[in-house]
Amino acid sequence: MRLDAPAEGEGALIERIARRVGQASLSDAFRLVLGIGDDTAALQIGEQTLLWTADMLLEGIHFRLDWIDPASLGWKSLAVNLSDIAAMGGTPVGALLSLALPAERTGAWLDAFVDGLAECARAYGVALLGGDTNRAEQVVIDVSVLGVVAGRPVPRSGAQAGDWLLATGALGGSRAGLYALLAGEASAIDLTPHFRPIPRLQVGALARELGATAMMDLSDGLAADLPKLLRASGVGAVVCAAQVPVHPAAAHWAQAHGLDPVAFAIAGGEDYELLIAAPPPVAQRLLERVPAETGVPLAHIGEVIAAQEVWLQRADGGRESFAIGGWDHFRA
Amino acid sequence: MRLDAPAEGEGALIERIARRVGQASLSDAFRLVLGIGDDTAALQIGEQTLLWTADMLLEGIHFRLDWIDPASLGWKSLAVNLSDIAAMGGTPVGALLSLALPAERTGAWLDAFVDGLAECARAYGVALLGGDTNRAEQVVIDVSVLGVVAGRPVPRSGAQAGDWLLATGALGGSRAGLYALLAGEASAIDLTPHFRPIPRLQVGALARELGATAMMDLSDGLAADLPKLLRASGVGAVVCAAQVPVHPAAAHWAQAHGLDPVAFAIAGGEDYELLIAAPPPVAQRLLERVPAETGVPLAHIGEVIAAQEVWLQRADGGRESFAIGGWDHFRA
Repeated sequence: MRLDAPAEGEGALIERIARRVGQASLSDAFRLVLGIGDDTAALQIGEQTLLWTADMLLEGIHFRLDWIDPASLGWKSLAVNLSDIAAMGGTPVGALLSLALPAERTGAWLDAFVDGLAECARAYGVALLGGDTNRAEQVVIDVSVLGVVAGRPVPRSGAQAGDWLLATGALGGSRAGLYALLAGEASAIDLTPHFRPIPRLQVGALARELGATAMMDLSDGLAADLPKLLRASGVGAVVCAAQVPVHPAAAHWAQAHGLDPVAFAIAGGEDYELLIAAPPPVAQRLLERVPAETGVPLAHIGEVIAAQEVWLQRADGGRESFAIGGWDHFRA
Repeated sequence: MRLDAPAEGEGALIERIARRVGQASLSDAFRLVLGIGDDTAALQIGEQTLLWTADMLLEGIHFRLDWIDPASLGWKSLAVNLSDIAAMGGTPVGALLSLALPAERTGAWLDAFVDGLAECARAYGVALLGGDTNRAEQVVIDVSVLGVVAGRPVPRSGAQAGDWLLATGALGGSRAGLYALLAGEASAIDLTPHFRPIPRLQVGALARELGATAMMDLSDGLAADLPKLLRASGVGAVVCAAQVPVHPAAAHWAQAHGLDPVAFAIAGGEDYELLIAAPPPVAQRLLERVPAETGVPLAHIGEVIAAQEVWLQRADGGRESFAIGGWDHFRA
């Protein structure tokens, strides 16, 4: 897969908006560190660097109310934003909740939703500070999160040829849950990865501290997200198929349906794991310290190369294009 | 109208969420100045006080695409948030845009929408820093804005018995536009107040600087919003009907349809004018300086009283209850 072509789908849409808006000009009190196109915006105010992000979840597009319980939906609505803060190496501070609800969701359903969101907020030290409520025919949730980062946040654009590529946790578990729900076989699979993603805040902070060059969270699947990091950095990569950490639920689902587990795992969206690029000495330290200090597995999945291409290296020595799919709202 | 009863509709929903979430606990680097229930959240970071707000606009609920052109919708999406920053006496800094769009809105329609939003951003010195795009069957827009305020923001809760009540601009113009659109008589009315509200940032900053005790923006109409400010402050008010500034479009529409212009104007939502409470000497200075320095009309519409009641004082000396209506998403 070549990486020097223009972005398509959602990426192209964001580029279109960014071009049209032009250069951000901030008032004197602030300095823009990162604008449109990274996991979060970053702006400096006095000694602090603020991180700021928002994610919208829509009924019928991102979730179905006959599948997900309200408490899990509340957890997930906040967790996906915290994952963006983690991807910069930051610490979340507060959240705003914009909510549109049908009238029949304003009672016990809302209470359970708020309980799930508050549980996630408490778990990661985030204060819910306000928001907006509206009536609508379908549930729409937009959570905005503000965080801070000590020093410079880790952008998507810093990867260098020779860096190692690392991934936290395991991939494809959320996709396996989604596929099981779609097939009406939900009881066959653990739905926790799909319903309650874990933001990798400790790992992100450690990666920033030790000197990771680029980082992002995997929300659209490794196959869709890795090219974004590489394109932003002007580099390419080779990923080792045998090193990709496949979630047990993904392996189970793929085997039961005659699919290749690695291909299934790297196409999987909503992993909310971190993809990290780091020079080999930094990567080696992370591979030791992350599992030991945070309990989160970390895998060395490949290398950054200078050529703007991305390949999947098979165990038999063959290479195949990485353009396996991944999730794009505007091509789905 | 008595004010000591529990809030209903959207107010009750917000109180329900706030109760369930409990007290916000911020990390050590921050101090919460204002949480859920004011025009914006406010948190202190170092020497700066940040203001933070979000507003969601939904197709079919807040706007119809056969009525509003995309550039005006872009303008309005940002302006309604800037109005919240104005209501605290603050200055906006940056914005995030979360957007859900049907595929047929991703071309020229999106360009015009972004142009309108960028026009508003340039007019008020705001940088668009990022956001989120999604596919959906209907357009959903959620803009989040971050601002700063020098010193303490003006809350809703500071009004004191004896304060004067002031209102910027004129009321009911947006409602007249909405009614004309609903009646298929849009050509009869100037739709600018409905499509392109003007955030009163200069007025808000001046009111804060001179010592206003309470302030909010009128998004749901004076009849719905004044009780919110009074309830937050634990006071009541008498509003003088003859002093309410009625927008010419509202007067025109009311007269043409046999309605009372003042009743029509105070029930009108989406005015995005400021409602200000201030001790008489401060109010008098504002009544002189605001029109002279900002070009925005300012009217003295009533007084704050200790009793938790709100009355409309008629020109003939009679009083009537203020419970005229106003806009509530959950009762509409």
